[in-house]
Amino acid sequence: LSPARAWCQAAAQKLPGGIGSKLCDLLPALDGDMKTMTFLQEVVDILLAYITESFDRETKVIDFHYPNELLQRNNWELQDEPETLDDILISCRATLKYAIKTAHPRYFNQLSTGLDMVGLAADWLTSTANTNMFTYEVAPVFVLLEYVTLKKMREIIGWEDGRGDGIFSPGGAISNMYAMLLARFKMFPEVKEKGMSSVPRLAAFTSEHSHFSIKKGAAALGIGTESVICIKADESGKMIPADLERKILEAKQKGFVPFFVSATAGTTVYGAFDPLIAISDICKKYQVWFHVDGAWGGSLIMSRMHKWKLDGVERSVLKLTWNPHKMMAVPLQCSALLVREEGLMQNCNQMHACYLFQQDKHYDLSYDTGDKALQCGRHVDIFKLWLMWRAKGTIGFEAQIDKCLELSEYLYNKIKDREGYEMVFNGKPQHTNVCFWYLPPGMRYLEDKEEKKKRLHKVAPVIKARMMEYGTTMVSYQPQGDKVNFFRMVISNPAATFEDIDFLIEEIERLGQDL
Amino acid sequence: LSPARAWCQAAAQKLPGGIGSKLCDLLPALDGDMKTMTFLQEVVDILLAYITESFDRETKVIDFHYPNELLQRNNWELQDEPETLDDILISCRATLKYAIKTAHPRYFNQLSTGLDMVGLAADWLTSTANTNMFTYEVAPVFVLLEYVTLKKMREIIGWEDGRGDGIFSPGGAISNMYAMLLARFKMFPEVKEKGMSSVPRLAAFTSEHSHFSIKKGAAALGIGTESVICIKADESGKMIPADLERKILEAKQKGFVPFFVSATAGTTVYGAFDPLIAISDICKKYQVWFHVDGAWGGSLIMSRMHKWKLDGVERSVLKLTWNPHKMMAVPLQCSALLVREEGLMQNCNQMHACYLFQQDKHYDLSYDTGDKALQCGRHVDIFKLWLMWRAKGTIGFEAQIDKCLELSEYLYNKIKDREGYEMVFNGKPQHTNVCFWYLPPGMRYLEDKEEKKKRLHKVAPVIKARMMEYGTTMVSYQPQGDKVNFFRMVISNPAATFEDIDFLIEEIERLGQDL
Repeated sequence: LSPARAWCQAAAQKLPGGIGSKLCDLLPALDGDMKTMTFLQEVVDILLAYITESFDRETKVIDFHYPNELLQRNNWELQDEPETLDDILISCRATLKYAIKTAHPRYFNQLSTGLDMVGLAADWLTSTANTNMFTYEVAPVFVLLEYVTLKKMREIIGWEDGRGDGIFSPGGAISNMYAMLLARFKMFPEVKEKGMSSVPRLAAFTSEHSHFSIKKGAAALGIGTESVICIKADESGKMIPADLERKILEAKQKGFVPFFVSATAGTTVYGAFDPLIAISDICKKYQVWFHVDGAWGGSLIMSRMHKWKLDGVERSVLKLTWNPHKMMAVPLQCSALLVREEGLMQNCNQMHACYLFQQDKHYDLSYDTGDKALQCGRHVDIFKLWLMWRAKGTIGFEAQIDKCLELSEYLYNKIKDREGYEMVFNGKPQHTNVCFWYLPPGMRYLEDKEEKKKRLHKVAPVIKARMMEYGTTMVSYQPQGDKVNFFRMVISNPAATFEDIDFLIEEIERLGQDL
Repeated sequence: LSPARAWCQAAAQKLPGGIGSKLCDLLPALDGDMKTMTFLQEVVDILLAYITESFDRETKVIDFHYPNELLQRNNWELQDEPETLDDILISCRATLKYAIKTAHPRYFNQLSTGLDMVGLAADWLTSTANTNMFTYEVAPVFVLLEYVTLKKMREIIGWEDGRGDGIFSPGGAISNMYAMLLARFKMFPEVKEKGMSSVPRLAAFTSEHSHFSIKKGAAALGIGTESVICIKADESGKMIPADLERKILEAKQKGFVPFFVSATAGTTVYGAFDPLIAISDICKKYQVWFHVDGAWGGSLIMSRMHKWKLDGVERSVLKLTWNPHKMMAVPLQCSALLVREEGLMQNCNQMHACYLFQQDKHYDLSYDTGDKALQCGRHVDIFKLWLMWRAKGTIGFEAQIDKCLELSEYLYNKIKDREGYEMVFNGKPQHTNVCFWYLPPGMRYLEDKEEKKKRLHKVAPVIKARMMEYGTTMVSYQPQGDKVNFFRMVISNPAATFEDIDFLIEEIERLGQDL
């Protein structure tokens, strides 16, 4: 037995009726060690039980309650007086009882699903180390691991010797905002001091299927959403390069300065990969900065079988967003922005805070990475990715990604000719996104097309609501353009199997047949 | 014994020579339960040992190595092949060996120090639940807890019935950027679509002692750092209201539109509280939005003894940044932005992504809070604050804050007349910041003032470097304006005691006497 566990057991024997202590008995209280160990071990036991339950297909994905009902099911209020630690354990149990089991093999609702055990362990360690990424001084190991990992990622992209820069940011939306910020600064460095009034009217370009964060970023950065010009996508959701060129020319004629093209590698809904080589050629021709939003699809570069979908990504002259918390199943949140030009982030964002980035420290200051970020305090997101990479190896990530794509192909093949299903777009999906309508039997032979559309629009929301009420599985749906509500199945959950795909189809049919 | 622990022990008996497995043996592998429990329990044992060690004053705060040396002390590289879980445990131990012990009672280096056991437990649970704050659908409990907690915080500020809005964001810098973004949108809503070209030249105002994130935000938002006008601070670091009024008038004359004043409640270096009532009067007079950056000092509102320092904060017509991860010792990262006007964040930031914020869901959509954020995915930062609040009660936070302020007053009283010390500003500190020079004996009677300043400038960096090399304690230093390097002691660590303050002084003298 480890000393910690021995302590723990001794403590448990002394306090058989529960922990019976308050927070003030724990560390840093004098002699708080034993009570602390007992308390934390109790919490860990709750978590371990939750984990095994989460992977059990007999368990519900969610014990769903409407907001007002959930508010009443427990006392969630904050009080003046402290609670006992036994009450705290009760709160932990209640919180998990009503949580979504995102690790559940049948949870397909988001782009980030599943729970990796090494990633989880790493996140527990990160919480325990409880530090901040702004300087080497306060996070020596984590800063180095960020350095090592970003370099490895740049090597995989194909940038010479892995040179360049980058940062882990709080999510793909912020990474994309950084990208736009850097592109603007690169073209008009005076914008940092003088603001947008020193800059001509800018234009950014992205496909109509791209992520909403491009527009959100433009709004925040003072560029304005009207300056984000949507490029047409083809039937399968890929940006049409000819339309990009046409719209760049159009914008120039109107007096806009095109500064930024964001191509998407793996769109959110269709999972489409924009043709990066053709887009990069156009960017080069018109001297526009080329960014790739690979938040969802960037991870496919780790798969020898699928990385051709990202051909041209190495040409992203500026930067790439890549979210390991999605296809690589790293616990939330883990989003990398990779930047080709060294020093650009630093020049764009630094403010030289003298209380943090002292220039007379006794170590190599290039490891004080905080001033290139928009954040001051920055959460340690690197350790879980690094530790998972060590545990899986590059080939482990590759196997995981390939398996998810295999599952989605299985789903596609299963339903493409099945009665009652209609695919939203033709052809094999490029990513794990499978977009389809399910038509209940009573709706299949309706002649009135408008009536059929109207009724079909309501099918997915009802099936989804029933899924949540039964708690059997969860999958997302949405409309897109003039297409009524359809299911968007995505697979990033390493726990999913062929049987879970079969189950999903059976469940959709069971819950939707009467509609 | 809980089922999880029974499992665990059985597994340990079967595998006495170590875990001997690979990641692929763990969940979701078939029958991976036992190996998973064993592995996670091993990690927990490492963490528990690290925790008890961290609180032990006999332990070093840091086992410091220079970056290149640290890179060579361990194999940190990422490989193609997977490692065994035993190797993963070795990596965990190595990572902690070289980490900073931020929980150590003598770690005073940053505004965020210490480690709360309930906060830690909550963070472990958060990692295990591994979900995303964007919708109620995927984070029902956490979304409700955010709602409950933000309301409570608004009540404490003194906003009527706790009405208003807010969000937890990735750090105070981002919260301040949100504040500026909202102020701009509130005054010129067309900026969202049309960008800064539709808006007159704006001016923002903040004290010369304010946090660098105000300028960083202005640069990012396309406002430009030159539009951030620095207001003079008095000798103790507080904004001078008369100078604010003068500069607002000056800016107006130059054709700028004053839109935003950021007052600081607790500056980073001096811990000064700007006079909020006087500032808010000026803001009202000139119709400028009044924001309070209480990232560091906002928590004092929980103390009946100290909350007068924030008098006027309830007048912040727009918003308040308040970082519970600092004075309230909530694990990193936990930063709240509180907004007075309901709906403003939503209008400012929403982009209606139809794949996420479907309007035909079966529950009350007001709980889908994601579209008011700049982020898409958003880490769950609420649970640790909520659970700590339950465990401590409001009075527990108050006691913790009061104790830190008592310790800083003790330090101030101890050194203000002590030989070899000079205070950077006169008077009792308002926050826990105590700013002082230590003059080694050989420097005390130097007559040449320039020479003295020059030599004094080098004292703090050397003492700090020695502290890190011995690993005995850590405290920050910096210059400010024309003042040469001085120590900035801050106390937010709940583990610190009077003896630790005594130790710090002894240590500074021991390490600095020969300089």
